[in-house]
Amino acid sequence: MSNSPIRVGFIGLNPDSHWAATAHLPALKALGDTYEIVGVANSTPESAKRTADELGLKYAFSSPAELVASPEIDLVVVTVKVPYHYELVSQALEAGKHVYCEWPLGNGLDEAVRLAELAKQKGVVAAVGTQARTAPEIIHLAKLIKDGYVGKVLSTSLIGTGGNWANQCIAEHYYLFDRKNGATMQDIPMAHTLAAVKDVLGDFGTLDATFLSNFDTVKIAETGEEKPKNAADQVLVQGTMASGAALSVHYRGGVSRGTNLLWEINGTEGDIQVTAGLGHAQMVQLTIKGAKGEEKELSDLMPDASVYEGMPEFPGARNVAGIYARIADDIKNGTKTAPTFADGVELHKVLDAIEKSAEAKN
Amino acid sequence: MSNSPIRVGFIGLNPDSHWAATAHLPALKALGDTYEIVGVANSTPESAKRTADELGLKYAFSSPAELVASPEIDLVVVTVKVPYHYELVSQALEAGKHVYCEWPLGNGLDEAVRLAELAKQKGVVAAVGTQARTAPEIIHLAKLIKDGYVGKVLSTSLIGTGGNWANQCIAEHYYLFDRKNGATMQDIPMAHTLAAVKDVLGDFGTLDATFLSNFDTVKIAETGEEKPKNAADQVLVQGTMASGAALSVHYRGGVSRGTNLLWEINGTEGDIQVTAGLGHAQMVQLTIKGAKGEEKELSDLMPDASVYEGMPEFPGARNVAGIYARIADDIKNGTKTAPTFADGVELHKVLDAIEKSAEAKN
Repeated sequence: MSNSPIRVGFIGLNPDSHWAATAHLPALKALGDTYEIVGVANSTPESAKRTADELGLKYAFSSPAELVASPEIDLVVVTVKVPYHYELVSQALEAGKHVYCEWPLGNGLDEAVRLAELAKQKGVVAAVGTQARTAPEIIHLAKLIKDGYVGKVLSTSLIGTGGNWANQCIAEHYYLFDRKNGATMQDIPMAHTLAAVKDVLGDFGTLDATFLSNFDTVKIAETGEEKPKNAADQVLVQGTMASGAALSVHYRGGVSRGTNLLWEINGTEGDIQVTAGLGHAQMVQLTIKGAKGEEKELSDLMPDASVYEGMPEFPGARNVAGIYARIADDIKNGTKTAPTFADGVELHKVLDAIEKSAEAKN
Repeated sequence: MSNSPIRVGFIGLNPDSHWAATAHLPALKALGDTYEIVGVANSTPESAKRTADELGLKYAFSSPAELVASPEIDLVVVTVKVPYHYELVSQALEAGKHVYCEWPLGNGLDEAVRLAELAKQKGVVAAVGTQARTAPEIIHLAKLIKDGYVGKVLSTSLIGTGGNWANQCIAEHYYLFDRKNGATMQDIPMAHTLAAVKDVLGDFGTLDATFLSNFDTVKIAETGEEKPKNAADQVLVQGTMASGAALSVHYRGGVSRGTNLLWEINGTEGDIQVTAGLGHAQMVQLTIKGAKGEEKELSDLMPDASVYEGMPEFPGARNVAGIYARIADDIKNGTKTAPTFADGVELHKVLDAIEKSAEAKN
């Protein structure tokens, strides 16, 4: 393939929206001329036009269908809400495009399976945005564990906060509080973090879960309106890794002035502690400390500073850049280094097991 | 009743043994002339004689039966291993003595129930050594929660280490690794801590547990011998408090260079974090931090320094002194301020529910 930039079309990009603008735009910018954002399709042609004008993009497509049909687009990036993933990603795959779809891949396991099957059929690069997996800290941590830093892993304990999923939110986030949208606390922050846990500690084993709600309603910040909520604000998982190590997970709605992310790994030879200011491991700066052998106290175990050079400061953008870098390799070399839809299905299976276990108790 | 000292007889006291010597002796000393240690019975008359000689006690009883029969003893303190509690405590109660029995009260729920029934029949003071409940920090913490420091409690997360229950121990501790002795990680450090959790957050609700073993054998430090082990080295509990708040517990064998005790309480108005160097909340200095309302960072929330005045420095001894002080009140005033055998039964019921849940998975 040529060395000309990979031509990107965004479905769901507003310069003032949170994630696509704050994570994807700086990520692509950091990768120089590897990529070129060529066009955008939004929920309305007017919105696409505004984005194209503001960002100086060549094409404002009148619809996602027009975007995926364009011969000027190599990679379709889907950054809309989960309920629209299936239809939009299917369209892009059917059109033979490479796809980068934000996590969660599907609204539930079935959709993810069908998307992964279609991607396989089409033979394109189909990457899912579990970008904690490309965080420099997680890559470093996986290597530490693989190299035996803690010896045999005995247990891992994880406490995280969701930021959302307490009793108030901004209107834009209300959809997160309705389970039917597939964007719950277990689907988003916990799943992103578990994707990293799997890279570091291997497959999950038996999982047993409890979902609880302290709140049945959520107050919309802008209006004060109380709206119904059915997503859990407390998610508890206990069980094993496939290795036999114990796993304990507690995700909590909102934020804490105490623990927001604590992920500890204890082994026969050492201990590692990962901490951060929020349970969304995919978008926060992770701090790694550890001790092994005769060491008495934890000390810094961060990756070499060089891995951060030239990367965006916002960790979410940096990790998304990691995904884009791998997608570029995969498109150019036919490799599968970026998280694939098949990987996404595996993570959806873990979530599905967790949800079924929790539901069986209700 | 008179103001003369309460006359104590110890069953199981060696000046060089760990707990009775390091916790009970300084505790009684700190209480001045409230108590007088009058005599001791050990597993052999020779051992009792050595203790009596070394500590200057009036009586070295040839057997526990002789001790409990002595009219010179008001309070029988039982500090032997759990499997002997039932028989020795029964004897003391039958003899009409007040009893202070170390936790766990019985080897399993049934023994505890029978001891509590007998104690009730006899109308004596029968206290169980769940001394985390008398830790100044726990009393302070319970008041903070009761006074609404965190508002409505939403969740509590607890990670603790057992010190023991990994893959090596000293010979004296080997009995802890055999479930039949009723002195497992869930029975001792976790239960002591849960007794404090209950004082602070109220009754437990539904509990779901998993027990795992990373090791099937334990190496005896003195000899290098590998002996079988069937006690879990990973204990996971998830569920609810009766209030509806979420509860997540992970107890791990051994110690960590990371988290050894982290107990976080998150509420609508505030967050509290309790930490210590070991998961045995009953015998370590607990540190309490918290933040509420608009505060952004945790700050110290320790009890007033005055509560530590005149108390032993070793937190285990200080907390045991708290039990003895209450027993003295209860004997003199007919109150029930010390943890009763009935309280012990309630805690055994929690453990029994946890064990049954874990067993149902095997």
